Amino acid sequence: MEWLANIRDVAGKAGVSVATVSRYLNNKGYISEDAKRVISQAIEELNYQPSMIARSLSTKQTTFIGLIVPDIVNPFFPELARAIEDVALAYDYTVILCNSDEELEKEIKYVQTLQRKYVAGFIVATSHEKAEHYTELNVPIVAIDRRIHSSIPYIATDNREGARVGTEHLLQSGCKNILCMRGPSGLGPADDRFDGFNDAVNGKDVKTHVVECPFQFEASEKIVQDILQDVPIDGIFASSDVTAAGAMKAAHSLGIHVPDQLQIVGYDGTMLAGQLTPGLTTVAQDLYKIGATAARMLIKLIEGQELTEREVLIPAELLIRETTRSGA
Amino acid sequence: MEWLANIRDVAGKAGVSVATVSRYLNNKGYISEDAKRVISQAIEELNYQPSMIARSLSTKQTTFIGLIVPDIVNPFFPELARAIEDVALAYDYTVILCNSDEELEKEIKYVQTLQRKYVAGFIVATSHEKAEHYTELNVPIVAIDRRIHSSIPYIATDNREGARVGTEHLLQSGCKNILCMRGPSGLGPADDRFDGFNDAVNGKDVKTHVVECPFQFEASEKIVQDILQDVPIDGIFASSDVTAAGAMKAAHSLGIHVPDQLQIVGYDGTMLAGQLTPGLTTVAQDLYKIGATAARMLIKLIEGQELTEREVLIPAELLIRETTRSGA
Repeated sequence: MEWLANIRDVAGKAGVSVATVSRYLNNKGYISEDAKRVISQAIEELNYQPSMIARSLSTKQTTFIGLIVPDIVNPFFPELARAIEDVALAYDYTVILCNSDEELEKEIKYVQTLQRKYVAGFIVATSHEKAEHYTELNVPIVAIDRRIHSSIPYIATDNREGARVGTEHLLQSGCKNILCMRGPSGLGPADDRFDGFNDAVNGKDVKTHVVECPFQFEASEKIVQDILQDVPIDGIFASSDVTAAGAMKAAHSLGIHVPDQLQIVGYDGTMLAGQLTPGLTTVAQDLYKIGATAARMLIKLIEGQELTEREVLIPAELLIRETTRSGA
Repeated sequence: MEWLANIRDVAGKAGVSVATVSRYLNNKGYISEDAKRVISQAIEELNYQPSMIARSLSTKQTTFIGLIVPDIVNPFFPELARAIEDVALAYDYTVILCNSDEELEKEIKYVQTLQRKYVAGFIVATSHEKAEHYTELNVPIVAIDRRIHSSIPYIATDNREGARVGTEHLLQSGCKNILCMRGPSGLGPADDRFDGFNDAVNGKDVKTHVVECPFQFEASEKIVQDILQDVPIDGIFASSDVTAAGAMKAAHSLGIHVPDQLQIVGYDGTMLAGQLTPGLTTVAQDLYKIGATAARMLIKLIEGQELTEREVLIPAELLIRETTRSGA
């Protein structure tokens, strides 16, 4: 380790008191222009880097951001985390990763622990409506993917419109018997996507079937296998890529050809969709943009600025690959 | 926010000085048994939670662990990160997430920034051999997946043996013309897997072809498409699941049936492998165990304990799915 200058070294070099250097560093109280000049010179010459922890004690502010997600292993979250960390790094903030497993107790424990560590703010993806531990926080918080409370800024994909466009694509590709695999009822994004599905099919000459399915591969494979044996289906709107992958597997095991006999549209636009064979047509969320925007919103709040918008919806984009026969 | 007791409140309630409470909290210097008793009572009654930051200033120790990975979006790393965070949480440590993009400058910047924030230790996956910024650290460090330096404890999969077992499976399944898609030359795990491939094929009655391929889907798809048009290949050992997925796509687009005409074995055991159609036979790393072991090793070092082993190799496991004809 190289030698690191401390605040006393700076005061000595500048010929002022430690208290004056401290006032300078924390931007508090009166300091003469002369003192400012000699202190800034001393800091530069000594390559002094103030200890973050010492500073956070005096200002009660750190540069840590707490990121609470259900599970970083769910392919939806790494890209969000990546974007948040990229923006944080650019603004000299550091990201703390927390996996809540959607457990309320775990979330509350994280919030309490990180508050004791003087985290500067939180970015949270949670489905819990009991949100006192968030609304009563004395640091800023931004919600991603799922709304927490009307008082908390929120950023997500325009899920209703995205699902409408994805379903519309199945209609335009000639599907007449469409299965909607909706996500868990009561979960905001899943409900919004279901609304979008209905927006597209209502009043159209098409038979629809609805099944609720968790965002899990195995569950989806099992559910679709059962349905395809019972009901004639020529199109599936799945509300996640993982669900769609399970549906593809089920069709394959029953000898049903995709897209000739069955067309499938996924949702999310994760890397998985592009790596499947055939490539999965999907409604792509701009995950990087969601994460980056959330981080910028939070940093603005931490630094005492006003947000121009407290709710941001990012448009989704239909990626047409090989599980649909576009224009058929 | 509820009211939080501070160290002065504890001292007042216990009827001792702040310095005595501080000695008690930091477990340093003499305190009478009577003082210990009244302080511990006061802490309990006030539900006092010592500020981590105040403590880290006096003990120069925090409970932050810096986790440096190339890119959390690479499906290999979220599971590692998850395991590290699970263990960290159990021991009251907090994980800071850093994406280095394999850039040396970015790694060095992270190490410096986190040191100023008094991080207690690092877990690092890096391919840089220039490692002074790690070997000269004054906090513990553990290397995962890739060796950094002989002085730094290291934990990874037994890649050579894993690759040998995966290749052996192709031989036993009847392959006579095997393509080895080796990872980047000079990267430790990629070299080890290539050695394992050679261990399996050397001296056997089989034609082998070797191509170097980055761990990327598109690059793999392109490379395999070219090779399959030129050379008769009936088996592929790919040194990552993503590479194998690219090979599957290439075969599909050329109308080559997997596994009837071409058998494929991947490496990693990421979720992707199970979600592909047909399901990918792969050499599964125990990513969770690697991450959890790394976290436990680091916490031992942080807490001043000796490691019984400084290099840990975790066995891989062959998962046989549908891209090979086992026992054919």
